[in-house]
Amino acid sequence: MPLSPAPVNKVDVLIIGAGPAGLMAANALVHAGVTVRIVDKKVVPVTVGHADGIHPRTIEILQSYGLGERLQREGTRFDRAAFYNPSPNGGIKRTQRTEAIFAPTARYPFLVTRHQGGIEALFRDSMASKDVFVQRPVVATSIELSDSRSDLESPDAYPVKITLKHLDSEDGDEEVVHAKFAIGSDAGAHSWTRKALNIGVEGDQTTSIWGVVDIVPDTDFPDIRNWTFIHSNQGTLMNIPREGDLIRFYIQLSSDTDFVNRETGRVDLTKASPDRIMEAAAKIMQPYRVVRVGNVEWWTVYIIGQRVAQTFSVKDRVFIAGDACHTHSPKAGQGMNASMCDTHNLAWKLSYVLRGWASMSLLKTYESERLKYAQDLINFDKKWSKMFSDKPQSEDNLEGVSHEEFLGMLASQSGFLSGIGIRYEPSTVVNNKHQACASKLIVGERMTPRDFVYAANVNPVNLHDVLPSDMRFKILVFAGDIKVEASMKRLHALGENMGTSNSFLWRFGQGAYEKVFDMLCICATKKDDMDFTDVPKFFRSHWSKVLLDDTDMYGRSGGGAYEAYGISREEGAIVVVRPDGYVGVVAPFDHVDDINQYFASFMLEAPEA
Amino acid sequence: MPLSPAPVNKVDVLIIGAGPAGLMAANALVHAGVTVRIVDKKVVPVTVGHADGIHPRTIEILQSYGLGERLQREGTRFDRAAFYNPSPNGGIKRTQRTEAIFAPTARYPFLVTRHQGGIEALFRDSMASKDVFVQRPVVATSIELSDSRSDLESPDAYPVKITLKHLDSEDGDEEVVHAKFAIGSDAGAHSWTRKALNIGVEGDQTTSIWGVVDIVPDTDFPDIRNWTFIHSNQGTLMNIPREGDLIRFYIQLSSDTDFVNRETGRVDLTKASPDRIMEAAAKIMQPYRVVRVGNVEWWTVYIIGQRVAQTFSVKDRVFIAGDACHTHSPKAGQGMNASMCDTHNLAWKLSYVLRGWASMSLLKTYESERLKYAQDLINFDKKWSKMFSDKPQSEDNLEGVSHEEFLGMLASQSGFLSGIGIRYEPSTVVNNKHQACASKLIVGERMTPRDFVYAANVNPVNLHDVLPSDMRFKILVFAGDIKVEASMKRLHALGENMGTSNSFLWRFGQGAYEKVFDMLCICATKKDDMDFTDVPKFFRSHWSKVLLDDTDMYGRSGGGAYEAYGISREEGAIVVVRPDGYVGVVAPFDHVDDINQYFASFMLEAPEA
Repeated sequence: MPLSPAPVNKVDVLIIGAGPAGLMAANALVHAGVTVRIVDKKVVPVTVGHADGIHPRTIEILQSYGLGERLQREGTRFDRAAFYNPSPNGGIKRTQRTEAIFAPTARYPFLVTRHQGGIEALFRDSMASKDVFVQRPVVATSIELSDSRSDLESPDAYPVKITLKHLDSEDGDEEVVHAKFAIGSDAGAHSWTRKALNIGVEGDQTTSIWGVVDIVPDTDFPDIRNWTFIHSNQGTLMNIPREGDLIRFYIQLSSDTDFVNRETGRVDLTKASPDRIMEAAAKIMQPYRVVRVGNVEWWTVYIIGQRVAQTFSVKDRVFIAGDACHTHSPKAGQGMNASMCDTHNLAWKLSYVLRGWASMSLLKTYESERLKYAQDLINFDKKWSKMFSDKPQSEDNLEGVSHEEFLGMLASQSGFLSGIGIRYEPSTVVNNKHQACASKLIVGERMTPRDFVYAANVNPVNLHDVLPSDMRFKILVFAGDIKVEASMKRLHALGENMGTSNSFLWRFGQGAYEKVFDMLCICATKKDDMDFTDVPKFFRSHWSKVLLDDTDMYGRSGGGAYEAYGISREEGAIVVVRPDGYVGVVAPFDHVDDINQYFASFMLEAPEA
Repeated sequence: MPLSPAPVNKVDVLIIGAGPAGLMAANALVHAGVTVRIVDKKVVPVTVGHADGIHPRTIEILQSYGLGERLQREGTRFDRAAFYNPSPNGGIKRTQRTEAIFAPTARYPFLVTRHQGGIEALFRDSMASKDVFVQRPVVATSIELSDSRSDLESPDAYPVKITLKHLDSEDGDEEVVHAKFAIGSDAGAHSWTRKALNIGVEGDQTTSIWGVVDIVPDTDFPDIRNWTFIHSNQGTLMNIPREGDLIRFYIQLSSDTDFVNRETGRVDLTKASPDRIMEAAAKIMQPYRVVRVGNVEWWTVYIIGQRVAQTFSVKDRVFIAGDACHTHSPKAGQGMNASMCDTHNLAWKLSYVLRGWASMSLLKTYESERLKYAQDLINFDKKWSKMFSDKPQSEDNLEGVSHEEFLGMLASQSGFLSGIGIRYEPSTVVNNKHQACASKLIVGERMTPRDFVYAANVNPVNLHDVLPSDMRFKILVFAGDIKVEASMKRLHALGENMGTSNSFLWRFGQGAYEKVFDMLCICATKKDDMDFTDVPKFFRSHWSKVLLDDTDMYGRSGGGAYEAYGISREEGAIVVVRPDGYVGVVAPFDHVDDINQYFASFMLEAPEA
């Protein structure tokens, strides 16, 4: 059904909080044609500081929305990590340098830093092209959910009633908004939405106090442009290279500092100062010299909490996301990534339900996929923070954390830290029954990027560029070598099977399957041995739909994907990639029925015209 | 001396004609701080059709101005060429497919097509950021050059007087503009500027008549997305893939067509039509089917002229560039490339003279470098056009052009066709005395791009990205392996030598050498074996100035540059790259004097303050 233009006090989705989680949701939904309002209590957006680390998987996701190139242009990438430990002669010395992150299948095997406001601007500018803007300063003052079962079960109903207060109006104007769905992506430990919904949190405040400064340094420290971990007898410091010549120091502050108010247990920023943080940094970095040039761009001091919300939704009509669901230390730079990945996971599901293409039950997989991830994240953070805070191993402190333990932790968690290895468990939208037919392409993980060439013109193309976040399922038909007669015969038979009215393409294609599904044919044939016109018309709605697993004209990229994916060139396979880029189901050519069943488990047929 | 803001009727440079040549000049000069006016007789810019092919070297040049990425995003690249010849059974059949262009050292080893208006928009948008716009519809009606010798010799004088007529004013308003220099980049065979200056042309009209159509095709032709040359017994056709699904056909039309007016010898477009061109195409492409979908985006018919202007300047104060200097067939897609490369060559020289940094004699190298190229281009075009127009070899026509001859011509001219192999002869700005110390880096050719890593953070970087068209000479100090004691010692000695008042850095550095020179230190040391802080401070004004000839953290790029450039890791070398990206001079470490002399031959010392 078409999305009806709604009056401004009736919207498909109301989003509270325009940080990275809220903006990822808003941008994805707006481009999917969903009517969205997004509000934020801040008068103006963040322009410096705050979160700043973007991981390989998040870069891939941003690029799927067309935002990754600008991120890389405006941010700083870093490829190398350096580790320092106490020197026998006092001070520190370098123990080792390694890759900043080990993510061999990543399209972008590095980290990018950019201040949070720069990330948020990517989404805001993208939404502005659709004339949708963040309304601010606006807070929600009440939220009510209808208890009518028919309302709650109907994707067309507006069961969420939220009162918004415009803080810049002299009278404090309030308005009531009725929404089909709402997302609370408001700030962290103090999420208004989470509290208003009475969602509990599990976990605790720690005693770990950290200072953060963003500065341009004048220094002789040779690893100032690398991600650097310094364990000194004077304390622990993490250095992060940032855009331009900026760097960020995270410094562990002594627990007896007067920065903490003993009565409230909270940080008293009037007692802290960037100069005191820099003093601590200078001590830790001896014998290297470090002073700041010009102003401190941003700084803060905080005590780390490690908490996860008990549930991520109320009746699948109001959702919480991002810091409202999980808070933890910033030391592996996971926060902003986890937040954006939450709503990237949620947006397509909401869009499918709002369009009447999927049943409401699809929304349950948001919590099942993201709550488990959040718990894993907190568990990791506890171990990681402890290693960070503990004294380094030395002759006087044999019980301390050794460099090998520290590096081992980083290496063993690289799939998690890069986001590349995150795997969603089997569910209605993750079906690994035929995992064996694409043995190295893990169902539930993101589709692995590889370089291919277009059959029509041998232009190289990364698979991810043909898997944009356009709300469609991608049907990748790995046809094998179509110059082999048996393969071509099998491809024709597959086309006939998928062309029948029993096929998911027609049952769930909403009258014109290309609205819901994008189909590509990927051949193992060499570029000189075939033409794109050799592929049956059914599998090439356009010349760009035929890819080859072969090198480009100059041998600079391409080839080897069948092996990397564990797909047989003789048997082929069908790979279904979800709208968020995760592998949903794979099947051999003779098990299209299982793909039909996969879609039948959560998709709805179009009503008769 | 600083460039003074001039009243609008006094400008540093007046440019007549806002096509690719004029806009390349205007954009380069505007960003160099030169005051520019650029006028064009057309009411609105070109929006479809016209020239469309961009070659590997031109892509590099556009990227040096920050415009290459957008070009590639908006245009279509093509990597493959296909060749068709008569089939023994009638119709045509494919003989071979090859690389579209053979340019192994090119950063972008392919061609890009985009309609001329899209190319022009790159420059216009870039200039708009400096509030400079094309004035239109405006024509020049008179041009006078002062005959005062002192005026002609002084870069501060305004010896060029041009009357401009504003065509959109009801009274046909005229104004007089005084310019230090002028560039005539107005259209082709009918250049007003060239005629007004009485510059003769050499060469002739041919009898070759060509039709051109830009269409979206419906076809079963398998090479429709490749650059295709079809020699059939029905005629000759060239197919060029264009942005989106557009393609362009160039079709040779029979010389007895009624498209040509016998009396005037000019094309009579009222007799021609795109349908008649498409009819010819359909015959040539048999047995393949080709019809157009929707409208013809653009079409034309013309007779090819092959001419070169006798001189490119009058007294080095008024220059002509682009089609005003050279006209030829479009069949190797050279025109727009040659035009933009003309003014890319001129812009930095004008800028240096206007700033008082170089003597007027530098301007002579514009003609010496570009006129020879234009003559080579016409000579190539004559041979190439003939091969194109001649009947293909067949059993009935053994004298015809064979596929091997045709392909051989393409291959042997690949350096020329790609722009990559264009070499400027020795002159004041091309000094190959010490060619041997960088034996594979040809002095006079463009600096070869290679991937390096930054020493500070191992981020990969293409050398071209640190050689932008920012009007500075780039001093590349190839230091060898600085972990070898002799190399480090030699580097320190070089720093001392270059730090004296005899050094070009100080003599021609205009008081702060980084205005004129950008210096980089490129070490052969491995990334794990050194820190950027190991390089003497003299050679690293910033952490980004130290590069390593080594692979990145993932082995995806980098390494091998010393060998590729023919520079000894033991001896090192100094490579001076001109502001337009061409190698100006190379020298061993113990011959810095020759670099001093190179600059002294055309640069001026800053006057005493």
